[in-house]
Amino acid sequence: MRAVIRRNKQLVCDEIAELEPAEGQVLVRTLACGICGSDLHALHHMEHMIDLSRRAGGMTDGFDPAADTVFGHEFCAEVLDFGPGTSRILKPGARVVSVPVTMTAGGVEALGFSNRLPGGFAERMLLTEAMLLEVPNGLPTDQAAMTEPFAVGAHAVAKAKLEADSVALVVGCGPVGLAVIAGLKAKGHGPVIAADYSPRRRAAAERLGADIVIDPAQESPHERWEGLGVPKARAAQSMMRMMGGRFGQPVIFECVGAPGVLQGLIEAAPAGAQIVVAGVCMETDKIEPSIAITKEVELTFVFGYTPEEFAQTLHHLAEGVIDVSGLVTGEVGLNGVAGAFQALGDPEAHVKILVRPDL
Amino acid sequence: MRAVIRRNKQLVCDEIAELEPAEGQVLVRTLACGICGSDLHALHHMEHMIDLSRRAGGMTDGFDPAADTVFGHEFCAEVLDFGPGTSRILKPGARVVSVPVTMTAGGVEALGFSNRLPGGFAERMLLTEAMLLEVPNGLPTDQAAMTEPFAVGAHAVAKAKLEADSVALVVGCGPVGLAVIAGLKAKGHGPVIAADYSPRRRAAAERLGADIVIDPAQESPHERWEGLGVPKARAAQSMMRMMGGRFGQPVIFECVGAPGVLQGLIEAAPAGAQIVVAGVCMETDKIEPSIAITKEVELTFVFGYTPEEFAQTLHHLAEGVIDVSGLVTGEVGLNGVAGAFQALGDPEAHVKILVRPDL
Repeated sequence: MRAVIRRNKQLVCDEIAELEPAEGQVLVRTLACGICGSDLHALHHMEHMIDLSRRAGGMTDGFDPAADTVFGHEFCAEVLDFGPGTSRILKPGARVVSVPVTMTAGGVEALGFSNRLPGGFAERMLLTEAMLLEVPNGLPTDQAAMTEPFAVGAHAVAKAKLEADSVALVVGCGPVGLAVIAGLKAKGHGPVIAADYSPRRRAAAERLGADIVIDPAQESPHERWEGLGVPKARAAQSMMRMMGGRFGQPVIFECVGAPGVLQGLIEAAPAGAQIVVAGVCMETDKIEPSIAITKEVELTFVFGYTPEEFAQTLHHLAEGVIDVSGLVTGEVGLNGVAGAFQALGDPEAHVKILVRPDL
Repeated sequence: MRAVIRRNKQLVCDEIAELEPAEGQVLVRTLACGICGSDLHALHHMEHMIDLSRRAGGMTDGFDPAADTVFGHEFCAEVLDFGPGTSRILKPGARVVSVPVTMTAGGVEALGFSNRLPGGFAERMLLTEAMLLEVPNGLPTDQAAMTEPFAVGAHAVAKAKLEADSVALVVGCGPVGLAVIAGLKAKGHGPVIAADYSPRRRAAAERLGADIVIDPAQESPHERWEGLGVPKARAAQSMMRMMGGRFGQPVIFECVGAPGVLQGLIEAAPAGAQIVVAGVCMETDKIEPSIAITKEVELTFVFGYTPEEFAQTLHHLAEGVIDVSGLVTGEVGLNGVAGAFQALGDPEAHVKILVRPDL
């Protein structure tokens, strides 16, 4: 079958071996699979990513960054065939999504970052039957493929200590920031301030429900705290509380993931703020701990999602609680993936590109 | 009256103006005042400290780091005289402690870091009557002077998300680490692991109740997690939980405050750990955000204490819940302060030195 393979730090379209579903596995046809920022990074910097992941105790045993890899972990697929020991409750033709991990006799494979099993940039994949979720309610395939990236947002929001009157600021409206905005609004939270330099991303933030959308080139989003009733300095906060004033803990979502952003937020945040770090900065970063200490800032680093958050996100998409229509700004076949990776380098060009192996 | 003055980055003993208690103020005689690590740092690096504090929105208005400053914010004092508008419930001769801030007509002065009012390295001070706490229960003066540094530990512990079965690791057993150990044991928490290279500090940690005391030159404190039932990797944790295993969120207290320590802890911590950052690193520090993300580490930066935590600490000392006898390893008069600052450069030489202006 055909797949897009990462080989020698290039993306090439080539034939790979056909798949045979093993114990508990289901063979599926990939209908659509989003391109994630981590795919872009991994194309050129896989060795460094794997080194960092190993240092973090991640599941990278036996993964060889120099060997062939088929990316793709944001997929919607169609059931084709079943391996031994499967219950076969879903029928061939059923559309499914899944947390992108597959159990094998040799261990757990992270789809999209595995040498042994292909991810969604291949015509077919092997999934674990026990983890399949059928796409409900006639949710279109391109929207179902958004379950994975939007589950990331739901998880970040779940880790935030939001109070009813917390002001939430989302810094960066790429796919992670948009997912966080959607997660906040799905919980009925407001006000949500969103900031991004890109007009296209700001428009997407607005469509997902951000209450105040800011271009940091025109206005600092941090200037808004006081207007929304959150004093910035610790002394002013104490004074306000002494006078019976109330405000929830301010929460900032860092969804950029570039060096320097974190320290900028530590310095601009109101005292006592929680910064939920959802943007994945793969480089060494510098902070001033004494400023974080004086302000009693809390840095909550978040990653992935639970299976429950994944399932909940699918239902939010299917029930229209989160409306991702219009976020897909491009669709490519396998031959178009290398070009799509290049196009995504420009934040103004696209929000999300889907790979459709049938195109 | 006599005081030790920071002048031209030196400590000099000199005469300063007599004090007159203003509205709401009490004139006190300094009985004892501890030397804090922040005093050592401020002697040479006050300009940088003030710059960082300003960037953090701290109360540094009108403070001139080039002007004379009398340090000392860990004090026990004796009431001498009252200003206008005071209730005079305490009598002259009463021993008191106070959060080291004094209200003046011109604003709030941070004692020990003020050009306008002297801290505890002077024969007398001006305190705000409303903030005075009488030393109860015959608690010795040298122990009452530990209220301030031990309140720092109580606050750090209050910010920790300790569950009943959380393992707590205290890294660094200088005054901050010792105060954290005391705060943990005052809450009845265990097990507490404490780590420090200095035998003297390890002995102090043991005396304050640390359950396991480790010399990092001999053994990594992080090797103990698994033995105490906390799997380090996220996958192993999930597995254990799936099998019905339970363990509380691991909590690490960073009480060193030197560059590189934080990243070392991020890398060594079990997944999901909270790192309470109580050690004040005044230099720029480097972290690897992607490792913190993969492990979902939480960094909680803490500073100071609330007036309630301060009062509670005084009572814990007076009731013997926290036993600080033996922690004072040196006492000096005002003439000996400059030498004491030098001696404290060696972690093996002292735990805490008290300044006693009457010596």
